[in-house]
Amino acid sequence: MKDNIKGWVKTISLAPPTLQDNTADADRLLSALKMHLSADQIDIELSLLRKLPDLIRKWKYNIRCILFKDRKRWILADITDPGGSSPVTGLAIDLGTTRVVIRLLDLITGKPLGESSFDNPQLAIGPDILTRIHFSDQNQGVKKLKRLITDALNTELASLCRSCNTETQNIFLMAIAGNTAMTHLFLGLNPHFIIREPYIPVSNTPGIIRASELELEVNPNARVLIFPNVGSYFGGDLIAGILFSGLHRREDTSILVDVGTNAEVVLGNSNWLVSCAGAAGPALEGGVTKMGMMAGKGVIDKISIDPSSGQFTIHTIEDDPPIGICGSGLIDLAAQLFLSGMIDVRGKLTVSETYARVKEIDGMLHITIVPAEKSATGSDLTISQADLDSLSRSKAAMYTILETITETVGVHLPELSVFYVAGTFGSFINPSSAISIGMLPDLPLNRYTALGNSSLEGASMTLTDSSSIDEITEIRDRITYMELNVNQEFMNRFSAAKFFPHTDPSLFPSVKYPNRTN
Amino acid sequence: MKDNIKGWVKTISLAPPTLQDNTADADRLLSALKMHLSADQIDIELSLLRKLPDLIRKWKYNIRCILFKDRKRWILADITDPGGSSPVTGLAIDLGTTRVVIRLLDLITGKPLGESSFDNPQLAIGPDILTRIHFSDQNQGVKKLKRLITDALNTELASLCRSCNTETQNIFLMAIAGNTAMTHLFLGLNPHFIIREPYIPVSNTPGIIRASELELEVNPNARVLIFPNVGSYFGGDLIAGILFSGLHRREDTSILVDVGTNAEVVLGNSNWLVSCAGAAGPALEGGVTKMGMMAGKGVIDKISIDPSSGQFTIHTIEDDPPIGICGSGLIDLAAQLFLSGMIDVRGKLTVSETYARVKEIDGMLHITIVPAEKSATGSDLTISQADLDSLSRSKAAMYTILETITETVGVHLPELSVFYVAGTFGSFINPSSAISIGMLPDLPLNRYTALGNSSLEGASMTLTDSSSIDEITEIRDRITYMELNVNQEFMNRFSAAKFFPHTDPSLFPSVKYPNRTN
Repeated sequence: MKDNIKGWVKTISLAPPTLQDNTADADRLLSALKMHLSADQIDIELSLLRKLPDLIRKWKYNIRCILFKDRKRWILADITDPGGSSPVTGLAIDLGTTRVVIRLLDLITGKPLGESSFDNPQLAIGPDILTRIHFSDQNQGVKKLKRLITDALNTELASLCRSCNTETQNIFLMAIAGNTAMTHLFLGLNPHFIIREPYIPVSNTPGIIRASELELEVNPNARVLIFPNVGSYFGGDLIAGILFSGLHRREDTSILVDVGTNAEVVLGNSNWLVSCAGAAGPALEGGVTKMGMMAGKGVIDKISIDPSSGQFTIHTIEDDPPIGICGSGLIDLAAQLFLSGMIDVRGKLTVSETYARVKEIDGMLHITIVPAEKSATGSDLTISQADLDSLSRSKAAMYTILETITETVGVHLPELSVFYVAGTFGSFINPSSAISIGMLPDLPLNRYTALGNSSLEGASMTLTDSSSIDEITEIRDRITYMELNVNQEFMNRFSAAKFFPHTDPSLFPSVKYPNRTN
Repeated sequence: MKDNIKGWVKTISLAPPTLQDNTADADRLLSALKMHLSADQIDIELSLLRKLPDLIRKWKYNIRCILFKDRKRWILADITDPGGSSPVTGLAIDLGTTRVVIRLLDLITGKPLGESSFDNPQLAIGPDILTRIHFSDQNQGVKKLKRLITDALNTELASLCRSCNTETQNIFLMAIAGNTAMTHLFLGLNPHFIIREPYIPVSNTPGIIRASELELEVNPNARVLIFPNVGSYFGGDLIAGILFSGLHRREDTSILVDVGTNAEVVLGNSNWLVSCAGAAGPALEGGVTKMGMMAGKGVIDKISIDPSSGQFTIHTIEDDPPIGICGSGLIDLAAQLFLSGMIDVRGKLTVSETYARVKEIDGMLHITIVPAEKSATGSDLTISQADLDSLSRSKAAMYTILETITETVGVHLPELSVFYVAGTFGSFINPSSAISIGMLPDLPLNRYTALGNSSLEGASMTLTDSSSIDEITEIRDRITYMELNVNQEFMNRFSAAKFFPHTDPSLFPSVKYPNRTN
């Protein structure tokens, strides 16, 4: 069995003590590790000291060490038999507001062993984070919320271990990436001031915590890395995303957009990182955020319209009968409606009730995507003019944020070398459609990179590559968080961006739509 | 109330957060502390994070911080109300094999509040450390020994707190100095290999441990500094002694001798430190160590003999009726017998049964120190020729150790600028008598300094002077431990030193005894 060079598991062979070299067991082990790791300080717990003398001799001075690192301080989390057959595993966690994804990894090979996901049980308290934060003001509210997520996680990780034929006791390291509020609720920290001016978290850098302190039912010596956050609106999930993307290591300037419950943007390169979050002020409320709506079986995620026949071709997730439309489907729909001339540059339906798919309900036009006889709900699946108006605002908000953050630092959107799109949204969205409606900038399509669950991937990296733990500190410390100033200039930009694709179509040269004049 | 500049308690005033300066509560506090302390990393526990946001606001951004330091890592142990009236206290502990002494200190003023002592309850298992180490091999032996000392300490510290009108919850820091084996038994570490070649402790540097992990009933956030040891026969008690003496800060070379259960010697200056322990081989067995015997009420600690009248004048501890004689009394006795010509240069009684105080019992001469009618025991208090022979070996062993360690590093005994004598032995011994019998070198008396309970004093220093914690690491890392090589040269020296004062009387020019020939 070979140790993963980059990993946290190191097998150390010690010279047995002699009268001339008779330092203590722990000091012998730690000094060998320090040399190996070029470490200044390595901490070892009393519980480990207590079992060390017997084990060190039983294993004939060969020890498999499971390490971790908290800023400059290394931690010897546990030791195991170097010839033992039990695996040494770690658990990476994407702690989402609505969905939690966990991945079990072999810490020696660095390979994933299995993955599962579950609804965040705090949904029962409130679907959105705001409701939960208000709930936490109640008596024992913080504790109740913490208990919900901890219990569910313990159940799920045990079940994942079973399905991977391993035991929870073999989990020695964990890494958790979530937004700031979720991280607080997971740690049992009161999130009260996160949503109140001037928006103060309890801690931005909780560091590494004993799993037992968090009541996580894994190895009692296990350690948990809590991804740091930059502030109340810029969480550890995005730090994990940056880590995974590698944006912070590139010399050229790139951008990363994560549309989850919130829309967060990071711009930068190996020299600087600037970020902002999109939940900035009433103009955008229910705007960008709405597009992150959940995808699931039977949800329409792709639509194309044949401009000559007006024929709709829809695709649903897992090809189930259609039950609704998700954000990426809606963007596809709007793009197709626009490109086929069925909505105008203001996003208004140009077709009237004379068009079979259009009907007026309560004085508002609706367009049928799937007729009742083909839908899983038994009713027509429709999109109203109001939905389209909302999408206009959303896409305008997104574009305005992108334009504002880039212009603020003197970068032009077309100069971006990679446009990373994180999260579920990023995996499903069709960049071409998003460009057609003017939501994302008109870059060559090959510059768009979907990152998938970058939060989970970033968390996994910290468990399999020991150098990445220094990177997350470095990323966090380097980020300049820019509060979005929703001033007149921003509102002017926003108004211009509500048009399809934009009041200035020269910004979107690739988008060919009916009556294009330039 | 003013903070002690040198101490661990710092009151920090923070600028309240604003939209422009909206870092997290913990990060705000820690970065102010880092600036104040020039610290690189300060750790804060989850339990503290959980209460921080409410307290920081309740106290209007003024926080009294109780800090501690583990090598390069600072620890924020707890926070309290800067205007609060409860004291912030610390407990220094001299963890002796036979006696434990505790001192309560005000961590803000640095002043001692009270002190008490108690017998080490492990005496019930075995009076000497060897018996206890063997006991620890039994099932649950280590746990039982740990429980005994922990329970007794908890009872005694609670009682000390009551007598000082404070509460155990106000104890935030503790410092414990003991020999290596006692430190192991206190931490619940198996001392098995300490007494087996090549004499390996579990850890030389246990560092700082949570009081709760040690089941100490003080503030749950309290931290405990465990004095490091150099090896199995050079413990934290002596590191504490060096710290208190200041030997390691002096430019000129000094020596420190601690005669407790063991005899330990440190030689050095601000550039180097060399040490050795006297429990080295069978030649010295029951030798030096016996002189550390316990002093108590009624024990004879001083004796003078009028050479003309042969009159004995004795002094007992607390002036109680005499019950026996302790090490320092025995040294006084031997010196007086020698100076008055009642023992010769070989340490043999020169007086016969013709002298009223001398009688033969079982073929061996005994000299009566206190006749039955004046003793508290109702019997004569006597010293036999065998006792005197044993003393000759003890004093020879001591002198040989001192001669060997100094000569090994090329220092001559007369060059020592200070001769520190630590422990109870050091407090009671009369250097003049020790010189007369050739146990200690013939230095001017003003170079002898009794340190008292230097282990307790050193432990107290680490609680009241934050810079001293770096010193103990530095002392430990600088000490070169010299295994006493009991070779032919050593044995030759030892034989020469068994004479009174020495076969080479020129080494003791100040000692004037009958028939002195040089």
